[in-house]
Amino acid sequence: AFVLVLNTGSSSIKYELIDTGSGTRLAVGLVERIGGERGALTHTRAGSEPYEVHRPYPDHDSGLRAALDAFAQAGPDLRRVPLRAVGHRVVHGADRFTGPVLIDDEVIAAIEELSRFAPLHNPANLDGIRVARKAFPGVPQVAVFDTAFHQTLPPHAYTYAVPRAWSEDLGVRRYGFHGTSCAYVSRLAAEVLGKPLEETDLIVLHLGNGASATAIKGGRSVETSMGLTPLEGLVMGTRSGDVDPSLPSYLDSTAGLGVNESHEALMRAGGMLALAGASDMREVWEKADAGDEGALLALDVYCHRIRKYVGAYYAVLGRLDAIVFTAGVGEHDARTRARSLSGLERLGIAVDPARNQAKDERIISPPGSDIAVMVIPTDEEWEIASLALRVLA
Amino acid sequence: AFVLVLNTGSSSIKYELIDTGSGTRLAVGLVERIGGERGALTHTRAGSEPYEVHRPYPDHDSGLRAALDAFAQAGPDLRRVPLRAVGHRVVHGADRFTGPVLIDDEVIAAIEELSRFAPLHNPANLDGIRVARKAFPGVPQVAVFDTAFHQTLPPHAYTYAVPRAWSEDLGVRRYGFHGTSCAYVSRLAAEVLGKPLEETDLIVLHLGNGASATAIKGGRSVETSMGLTPLEGLVMGTRSGDVDPSLPSYLDSTAGLGVNESHEALMRAGGMLALAGASDMREVWEKADAGDEGALLALDVYCHRIRKYVGAYYAVLGRLDAIVFTAGVGEHDARTRARSLSGLERLGIAVDPARNQAKDERIISPPGSDIAVMVIPTDEEWEIASLALRVLA
Ligand SMILES: Nc1ncnc2c1ncn2[C@@H]1O[C@H](COP(=O)(O)OP(=O)(O)O)[C@@H](O)[C@H]1O
Ligand SMILES: Nc1ncnc2c1ncn2[C@@H]1O[C@H](COP(=O)(O)OP(=O)(O)O)[C@@H](O)[C@H]1O
Repeated sequence: AFVLVLNTGSSSIKYELIDTGSGTRLAVGLVERIGGERGALTHTRAGSEPYEVHRPYPDHDSGLRAALDAFAQAGPDLRRVPLRAVGHRVVHGADRFTGPVLIDDEVIAAIEELSRFAPLHNPANLDGIRVARKAFPGVPQVAVFDTAFHQTLPPHAYTYAVPRAWSEDLGVRRYGFHGTSCAYVSRLAAEVLGKPLEETDLIVLHLGNGASATAIKGGRSVETSMGLTPLEGLVMGTRSGDVDPSLPSYLDSTAGLGVNESHEALMRAGGMLALAGASDMREVWEKADAGDEGALLALDVYCHRIRKYVGAYYAVLGRLDAIVFTAGVGEHDARTRARSLSGLERLGIAVDPARNQAKDERIISPPGSDIAVMVIPTDEEWEIASLALRVLA
Repeated sequence: AFVLVLNTGSSSIKYELIDTGSGTRLAVGLVERIGGERGALTHTRAGSEPYEVHRPYPDHDSGLRAALDAFAQAGPDLRRVPLRAVGHRVVHGADRFTGPVLIDDEVIAAIEELSRFAPLHNPANLDGIRVARKAFPGVPQVAVFDTAFHQTLPPHAYTYAVPRAWSEDLGVRRYGFHGTSCAYVSRLAAEVLGKPLEETDLIVLHLGNGASATAIKGGRSVETSMGLTPLEGLVMGTRSGDVDPSLPSYLDSTAGLGVNESHEALMRAGGMLALAGASDMREVWEKADAGDEGALLALDVYCHRIRKYVGAYYAVLGRLDAIVFTAGVGEHDARTRARSLSGLERLGIAVDPARNQAKDERIISPPGSDIAVMVIPTDEEWEIASLALRVLA
């Protein structure tokens, strides 16, 4: 079946047209800098050269219409493809959504209501939903939530030790993100290991611009590093990850930095950007290779934090079949993988240097290791398409 | 030699008179609710009944004078004991103090300057110092910092991924606390293990009203759970420990709760108090034993958090000789010890039920375990007295 997957950010729309029958991606595209002056659309039909348009897109509506136009110009023409569903990535489903749902007015109202948890993301996701409903009036629209996979977290993992009024009235708890990616790679990891998912215990390290660690027991998320929002946990491209919870108050009282300013900085000016002056891991390594001290420290901090979460989640799981690296850094950055897991031989965890460097190697631990270390490319769009079809089945 | 150890809090003075020569504690005392109407002093001379006075103490000065008076009344009389030093516990020494120091005006100014890191504690500590200087004009006064032991943390452990201006200009980094306790119990643990401290790798779990985990490699702190302030890390009596760093901003924007209010709540109305309705672990267990759901959850969260730090710090250390429980909960609460470390057999960590229940057992792991689990009563006052003498030597 043909599924259009939409990932609408505050200033961008990513899309993919997937044929789940043949397992192929017929076209992928990106509309960038929506609302800005230097808007750009890149649309790539499988096997063809990219089709590009450079002009401003004032809003998501015009952005999505441009994408439809790109389908018409560069193919495949959506008017001739029988779309079975449009699958939408939605960032925050809180504890309201434990799986994908068919979108109706009630669901839209709920996503809107949950915007307080993700004030930048959910409203953008909703824009995409509204525009797509108009553009494809007869096609079922499905929402797939980043948080849903983590709704299996046990109370001891999702509960913060904070006043009850905050948890009960304001929904303060750990939710977790990157769930769609975790679901996808954990299924594949079990396949590669040749074990039923229900008997497979994994730590998934999703290391992209955002980064998270998740402990998965028998296919169910039991602990994860992102929390109420995607700020907690590992060091990320521009996000700090864990800091002392006193920090906002300290900055307010010592430097007059308001809580919204400091939060903004932790989200957008923290992480590798703060330490290395670059959020893109390739750039960080370039600097480090040239001897830049900030970049060297940034890599140390980044890998140290991963190591801590690996140890923590091994303890949470009690036993472990594999550690799975995925997303941009996880899939491509052999040095970060090796460094994060170095010195863990006593825990039965090791990376084989040759396998780690090899292209397309799925298992990078030494032969015979009890705990496998794996690299599994994630595919959130594929997972969204599959989940969308499952909802309709 | 005779050393008077003072631990001055915002509304209390704890004191001990220690004879380091004979290794005895000649008297211990507590002046409570200073500044309040129901002030109380309890002074216990070794081998005697407690001597109590109930009357208001308007300030630290009158509190300390009352303590001196108690020495005169109940003994030993400080006018006849040749005090070699007064040792002061000081909470925050930041990166200015890497060990104990003889107090002079410059040190006092520095402790004052560092009050921004510990606005409740450092000023109270300073009050104690000022009053003691007046009371014992000829006696050397030594400051012993909670943070000093952790000044060996490597940069990758103490660096938060936050804007550089914050770390460089505002001193934002991990400092760590409970250092005096860590130093004391790690030395004893190595002794019990019969290994040189320099070759001993430990995780110290200091579980008192405040609670922290510390990874100690060869006697040096290499990672610790408290951070810029004593709020980060484990769940504590009234402190939340780790939460999503977005929480203050979330509370501000969704509930209009200012950053200072929410910080106050995380410090004083979080932790076990928030979850179980009691900050004292004995009370929490009473409630849990009576089936109270909040208390049961609180214990789950408390132990789960410890388990995560144990796994994380094992990974940080790469090898491990022992896990050491200390402070009120760590020394006395066998069930919390057992529960925190249950299910870690694959990591080589286990608690022997009989040994764990036995009184005064130092090693509570099963015989022959590679990784020992230990209970070592801490003695911060003894450590402060020893350090004070070392400074004078
Ligand atoms: N070869 C590579 N080496 C190191 N890092 C890489 C490499 N390729 C991509 N990355 C990093 O992956 C990150 C983006 O990951 P990705 O999963 O695409 O992001 P997102 O979280 O936005 O989906 C960037 O930091 C990028 O530098
Ligand atoms: N027998 C016990 N069982 C459980 N908890 C205990 C026991 N005895 C003391 N505690 C707990 O120890 C904590 C105080 O620890 P302590 O080290 O004295 O505190 P502080 O951090 O103030 O020095 C309290 O939560 C108290 O309930």
